[in-house]
Amino acid sequence: LTDDAGTLIDALRARLAELDDLGRVGGLLGWDQQTMMPPGGGPARGEAMATLERITHERATDPALGELLAELADGGGGGGDHEAALVRVARRDYDRARRVPTELAGEMALAASEAQPAWLEARERNDFAIFAPFLERNVELRKRYADCFPESEHPYDALLDRFEPDATTAQIRDVFARLSTGLVPLIEVIAAGPAPPELPGPFAIEAQRELALELARAIGYADDAWRMDDAVHPFASSVARTDIRVTTRFASDSLTGLFATMHEVGHGLYEHATDPALDRTTLGTGVSMGIHESQSRLWENCVGRSLTWWRHWYPRAQDLFPDALGDFPLEYFHRAINVVRPTLIRVEADEATYSLHVILRFELELALIEGTVAIVDLPEAWNARMKELLGVDVPDDRQGVLQDIHWAFGELGYFPTYALGNVVAAQLWKAAREALPDLDDRLAAGDCAPLRDWLRENVHRHGRALMPAEIIERATGGPLDPQPFLDYLEAKYRPLYRL
Amino acid sequence: LTDDAGTLIDALRARLAELDDLGRVGGLLGWDQQTMMPPGGGPARGEAMATLERITHERATDPALGELLAELADGGGGGGDHEAALVRVARRDYDRARRVPTELAGEMALAASEAQPAWLEARERNDFAIFAPFLERNVELRKRYADCFPESEHPYDALLDRFEPDATTAQIRDVFARLSTGLVPLIEVIAAGPAPPELPGPFAIEAQRELALELARAIGYADDAWRMDDAVHPFASSVARTDIRVTTRFASDSLTGLFATMHEVGHGLYEHATDPALDRTTLGTGVSMGIHESQSRLWENCVGRSLTWWRHWYPRAQDLFPDALGDFPLEYFHRAINVVRPTLIRVEADEATYSLHVILRFELELALIEGTVAIVDLPEAWNARMKELLGVDVPDDRQGVLQDIHWAFGELGYFPTYALGNVVAAQLWKAAREALPDLDDRLAAGDCAPLRDWLRENVHRHGRALMPAEIIERATGGPLDPQPFLDYLEAKYRPLYRL
Repeated sequence: LTDDAGTLIDALRARLAELDDLGRVGGLLGWDQQTMMPPGGGPARGEAMATLERITHERATDPALGELLAELADGGGGGGDHEAALVRVARRDYDRARRVPTELAGEMALAASEAQPAWLEARERNDFAIFAPFLERNVELRKRYADCFPESEHPYDALLDRFEPDATTAQIRDVFARLSTGLVPLIEVIAAGPAPPELPGPFAIEAQRELALELARAIGYADDAWRMDDAVHPFASSVARTDIRVTTRFASDSLTGLFATMHEVGHGLYEHATDPALDRTTLGTGVSMGIHESQSRLWENCVGRSLTWWRHWYPRAQDLFPDALGDFPLEYFHRAINVVRPTLIRVEADEATYSLHVILRFELELALIEGTVAIVDLPEAWNARMKELLGVDVPDDRQGVLQDIHWAFGELGYFPTYALGNVVAAQLWKAAREALPDLDDRLAAGDCAPLRDWLRENVHRHGRALMPAEIIERATGGPLDPQPFLDYLEAKYRPLYRL
Repeated sequence: LTDDAGTLIDALRARLAELDDLGRVGGLLGWDQQTMMPPGGGPARGEAMATLERITHERATDPALGELLAELADGGGGGGDHEAALVRVARRDYDRARRVPTELAGEMALAASEAQPAWLEARERNDFAIFAPFLERNVELRKRYADCFPESEHPYDALLDRFEPDATTAQIRDVFARLSTGLVPLIEVIAAGPAPPELPGPFAIEAQRELALELARAIGYADDAWRMDDAVHPFASSVARTDIRVTTRFASDSLTGLFATMHEVGHGLYEHATDPALDRTTLGTGVSMGIHESQSRLWENCVGRSLTWWRHWYPRAQDLFPDALGDFPLEYFHRAINVVRPTLIRVEADEATYSLHVILRFELELALIEGTVAIVDLPEAWNARMKELLGVDVPDDRQGVLQDIHWAFGELGYFPTYALGNVVAAQLWKAAREALPDLDDRLAAGDCAPLRDWLRENVHRHGRALMPAEIIERATGGPLDPQPFLDYLEAKYRPLYRL
């Protein structure tokens, strides 16, 4: 490395450190908004976040950054692995940010903020027509966004890329086709079978909180670098690699809060275990929403809904909830937390049906971008496809096309990553089990260290230094593939439902 | 207002809104650091705060802002009261910020961050020599800072101005001389008298928290725009006018947490009651540390340690602490919360002796800046003056010159504002009582609205649109004056201590 290149890379690092700091500060504002802020703080918080985003965008698209990256690309960079990745990722971010005119970004933000109250009102009144013009505007702006990337094979690729870098519409379409082909008959046969036992209750909130914290600590939550709070919609946020905030929500009539906790701790663990060398580089964070969701789903479902896991934890749960679970056998509990039923609402869907909810949204987003479904026809298209995929009748738009906030935010391209999470989680789970022959025994003994270490080594530490496809390829020896997820579900449900 | 001037003022407002947002975001980072952040988040938080400060300083000293202000000063501005104030205050801020070279600001920040661990170690080891070179460096940099304002009558004026705009060393010296002349004999005569009754205990923390919240709500805390948390060193922070965060700390062997709460709610109320028209202008906040402290002291002491206040609240306290206070008469309680005793530690000092601790620090800071006391002689000077002012012997530097963190931060010029707070609180208290003849009756009925409204009208709403001296003049009809504080203490302690 020449002195010049050293100076250039230092200059790049300084700019990335600033961008990273600004991003983390924005994250803290969001976390605070959803956990701590008194309601009166809302309008001012919106202004402060917009200011921060504007400054961040200004710095992220500063032509001087572009010049620096160009010099580094001309042979200036190229030290260790990380430095090459730094230049590559920073250049990708810069190029993509520069493609989108500031005015368009502003219009997108404005349209999204105007659409949200309209969506809320439409949902409340069960009247899609109220939301339709705002959705139309969001879709139109997303098309203009896609136009900024004319080299894409499909305009939807540009939308996908914001959440899943390098993913293509063709690839997702293929994976989702294989996924629904496998899922639809599996779900049908389960749904036709006998009803699983219902989980008794109630479950005192404070005891749930205690157990949730114990599960979290077993997975990797550490008191000196994490915190856990309540939020209406649970999420995880990385204020820093050593300042991880997970949120959860408990209800006394179910244990969903425990699974939400394991889910969010899975997200948190990814952020917590990135390579410290990537701190303050913008690369020390999850590489995509799909890979992120694989980490949450793996802990929530592959681990958290397994018989193995509860072999260790169920006695503790029975201690904490003696009235509800004292006489309820472990095997019943395992079936009760693995109910599969086609239902209307995505966020309440089980592990098997969930992906079909996502596939439906992906298909409709594509249709909107391709113009093959008009906004006005969207509710009907939704309902028809729900019937085909899940066999359910949608009674009203509130429980159908109006249920999610994502389209009010204009976030097309986001939904697919939820199903990718399931797919990748199963691929990683398979690979980890092959690599760690005693994994089940260790989990059954309450020891998460082997799995945690494997995930750190194969996924977490890379941050954004590897692309999602590289992570999957290196960790599993193959490309994105829905088969392990289908195999995993079969292997789990066949004995459980005596299929 | 011409169209041009309108455009100019809009451009100024946009820049001030950004600066205001950045300042509030920095405030939230600080609040979070002291209340919520897991310890692991510390180093990253330091970096994020430094980044935010650097960006803020860059924007606050942007030459384009200077040009805008120059155009507005040339007759462009001049709409309503607020617009004139906007231009005037923004110009003052800009001019002062531009005076200080970026390198000097950086050196000051660096020296302060290096001095803090040295101060901690020195205090722990009770060894002033460890801290001395770092303090020397801080003082030297403060002198260079003062040199940036050569028009000042005294170099210390420039340091004062950062916390108390337009205050002068000559003025403070005069006020403090009159203050200590009155305080020293009063304290001597009280100290020679009989010991007041001791407050019984213990006081359950949760009951204290409940009472603290009730007191806070009576003063003006509202659940939809405030929150209250625990912090090691209580403080108040305004994330927005409608997002006020107060912190407090309770110990089971005393009720100091209640007084800390009233103190911080006093600060919060000032921020909460600024004119909404000043939102996002950088003027919608307290004008100086002295005026701010007057608001906290007024509620903590003038109200919170009065017999009147406890006539209403003592029965409630007795309900909450029946074992400790059930048989302890109100008059005893009133004397127990008004103990006056010369002691060693400023932060534990009572209402009467507190100002003498401050005066000592002011004198020593002046001596350091004037070069009449060498750093090496500082402990001795401290101890000698403690003996003169308070009659106490300082057993070691830990309980003497090393007790406060302020000098480790390099914050010379800050201490005087604590005593100004006492002085101004008494002036405002006197004026409010004259203006509101039934004030005592209302407070004795638990009704704070008349006092709160008077303070809003005369102090709070102005934010930074009036200078401290203007606020005092308009509200009290005269200049800064220590006599009302001395009169207030005399009137309170004479009957209490049967002097």
